[in-house]
Amino acid sequence: MKVDPAAVPPPVRGFRFSGVHGGLKPKGRRDFALVVADRPAVSAAVFTQNASAAAPVKVARENAADGRIQAVMINSGNANAGTGEKGEKFVRWSCRELGSRLAIDPSLVLPCSTGVIGVQMERTPFARAVSLAVDGLSRKGLAAAARAMMTSDAFPKWSHREVDVGGATVNVCGIAKGAGMIHPGMATMLAVIVTDADLTREAAKTLLRDGVAAGFNRVSVGGDTSTNDTAVLLASAEAPGGRIDEDGGREFKALAAGVAEVCEELARLMVRDGEGATKMVEIVAVGTADNESAEKVADAIATSVLVKTAFAGADPNWGRMLMAAGNAGVKLDPAKLAIDVDDVALVKDGVLVSDEARRMARKVMRQDSFTVTLTFGKGRGRASKITSDLTEPYVRFNSQYTS
Amino acid sequence: MKVDPAAVPPPVRGFRFSGVHGGLKPKGRRDFALVVADRPAVSAAVFTQNASAAAPVKVARENAADGRIQAVMINSGNANAGTGEKGEKFVRWSCRELGSRLAIDPSLVLPCSTGVIGVQMERTPFARAVSLAVDGLSRKGLAAAARAMMTSDAFPKWSHREVDVGGATVNVCGIAKGAGMIHPGMATMLAVIVTDADLTREAAKTLLRDGVAAGFNRVSVGGDTSTNDTAVLLASAEAPGGRIDEDGGREFKALAAGVAEVCEELARLMVRDGEGATKMVEIVAVGTADNESAEKVADAIATSVLVKTAFAGADPNWGRMLMAAGNAGVKLDPAKLAIDVDDVALVKDGVLVSDEARRMARKVMRQDSFTVTLTFGKGRGRASKITSDLTEPYVRFNSQYTS
Repeated sequence: MKVDPAAVPPPVRGFRFSGVHGGLKPKGRRDFALVVADRPAVSAAVFTQNASAAAPVKVARENAADGRIQAVMINSGNANAGTGEKGEKFVRWSCRELGSRLAIDPSLVLPCSTGVIGVQMERTPFARAVSLAVDGLSRKGLAAAARAMMTSDAFPKWSHREVDVGGATVNVCGIAKGAGMIHPGMATMLAVIVTDADLTREAAKTLLRDGVAAGFNRVSVGGDTSTNDTAVLLASAEAPGGRIDEDGGREFKALAAGVAEVCEELARLMVRDGEGATKMVEIVAVGTADNESAEKVADAIATSVLVKTAFAGADPNWGRMLMAAGNAGVKLDPAKLAIDVDDVALVKDGVLVSDEARRMARKVMRQDSFTVTLTFGKGRGRASKITSDLTEPYVRFNSQYTS
Repeated sequence: MKVDPAAVPPPVRGFRFSGVHGGLKPKGRRDFALVVADRPAVSAAVFTQNASAAAPVKVARENAADGRIQAVMINSGNANAGTGEKGEKFVRWSCRELGSRLAIDPSLVLPCSTGVIGVQMERTPFARAVSLAVDGLSRKGLAAAARAMMTSDAFPKWSHREVDVGGATVNVCGIAKGAGMIHPGMATMLAVIVTDADLTREAAKTLLRDGVAAGFNRVSVGGDTSTNDTAVLLASAEAPGGRIDEDGGREFKALAAGVAEVCEELARLMVRDGEGATKMVEIVAVGTADNESAEKVADAIATSVLVKTAFAGADPNWGRMLMAAGNAGVKLDPAKLAIDVDDVALVKDGVLVSDEARRMARKVMRQDSFTVTLTFGKGRGRASKITSDLTEPYVRFNSQYTS
């Protein structure tokens, strides 16, 4: 499922970008991206929950802790994961290297890596990448940066919103990498969101947390996260208008909606980019006792290989959904289940509505995007997950992608 | 991965079997199996944990509760799951139907179904199946019964052990259906173990519980269970020798080993029969804090689609294993990880041993069976899971298998 990237978004005040080839990937492909703020920016970051977190994540956590970041440095081609102490030393060296080039403190650098696991990094091509990237920094470099982050991605991903915040126009722009897989979280997800709004640290934290929940966590099914997942938000305060606190006021809400939209669009682009995926499917679970149960059930369905292969075949195989839901560890009454595929009522009171309904559902499922809504009862629980179908090319890709 | 079934095992005293075509499956394929004891047998049964358990499981739980079963009735072609009250009424009718044919109480019947979910059963072909199967009961009907249980299975599965119990020869024999899938538990697993030993109810319970742990639960990764999973043990007491109590004595231990071996062999046959699977891989996790952590980590690796596709490509992609282990929800130190592929030391202290080690591991992984041992530290935890590779034919099969 290829999509044409939208037109490159306009510059965001206070930020420069670049994306270059330093030699970490072969054949001249871009492998190093920079996002640099003119001054230290108010920032927030969230990281993978994986117990085998990579070396750059360790250092990034430290550097992000004080809520001030000036440069996000991303290399593709090598995840610097499973590289032990040597890997960590490399990251500290690389922050110093970029810091000295930019004349900023190394602790203002947020390092991210993505690529193969278990291979040591090399200083020579990395130093070349840093040098080229610093030289190439530009207000219009966003597309190049998005491209340089890519690994198995088929296309670069960005999203932009202009938000009216109390009469002033504020920009929110994100770039990301990550291709939806069976457990989408298993492909490293990196996202950098920049805004020219003037934010307090608490506001930045809340905006990122809610954006991640509305976006990336809806495709990161099954709780799986890669060794390197990172999402970071930087605010330059260059837009007109006053400081935005997380007071829940109108300005904050407008900005929050913009950040959430950017995150959701980036997340949908990741699902579309799923290796071999041909369809994007939204799984909505409603009527459970609480949101947590709905999350679990939607996750179980969105992550079920049998459900996803049925999507590939446009097969309204509701039995597989019932089975997957039954494994979610949530109490449910199959006799109360209803399933709708877009607006076709396929299952009611736990049984198939009719053969005609099945035929209609099959028709809907031949589209490249549809929604499956499962109603489990009259509870107030609700959750929504975005997943893709599972096709043979996915498996081919993943058995041939070599370590 | 086709295997030739072993020679049909000898009869087990006190049991008759049959497997017939009643009309639930098309084209004259066997679709109904019976295992009948000459007298009510001491029995134990375990069932799926799936919250969407099928109608026959509901009734089987009731009938098995008193530890006495005389007939196990299995139909393939229709799981009678997601069929609501109508499905349950059908099961109760079917137990009465078989009971009257065998002149036994319907509560002595253990009903099992496997096949498509969400389709109502029909009485006419089922009654015909019951009638033909009762007429066909024979001491030598075990192979026919094993064949009649099959759904997506490529071959029938049975296993037999003669056990010397205090000088007397006791038989343990099992038949099963189930083909290992990505989440193997998602394909319904049915197993009937018969023995001519003389068991107390408590002994039967313990033998089955331990057998299931040693066998079926080692392939049922990720905690997933289908709507219909059932394993049952029947003891006819027709062998010479006294009653065997669960006193942990020598007789009990000998019999327990026999039951565990039968369960493990049946489980391995299921993995071999995985749709499109070409390899059987044992995942051993050791050195964790406790067995529970080892179970979680081994499960996470055995169930990882990325790990399983790497197995298909004979790719020693230890990074994927590290990532999968990191998602198991267990605290672990990647810097202490060691990975062996059979006797090749691939990873030590969290890093690749050498390119030569990788080359050697790749060679081992080209075999159709190998063991991956992950050592996480010096803890006493240990667990072992059996899994298969994931190939393109699997996905083809599951997108074309229609609901």
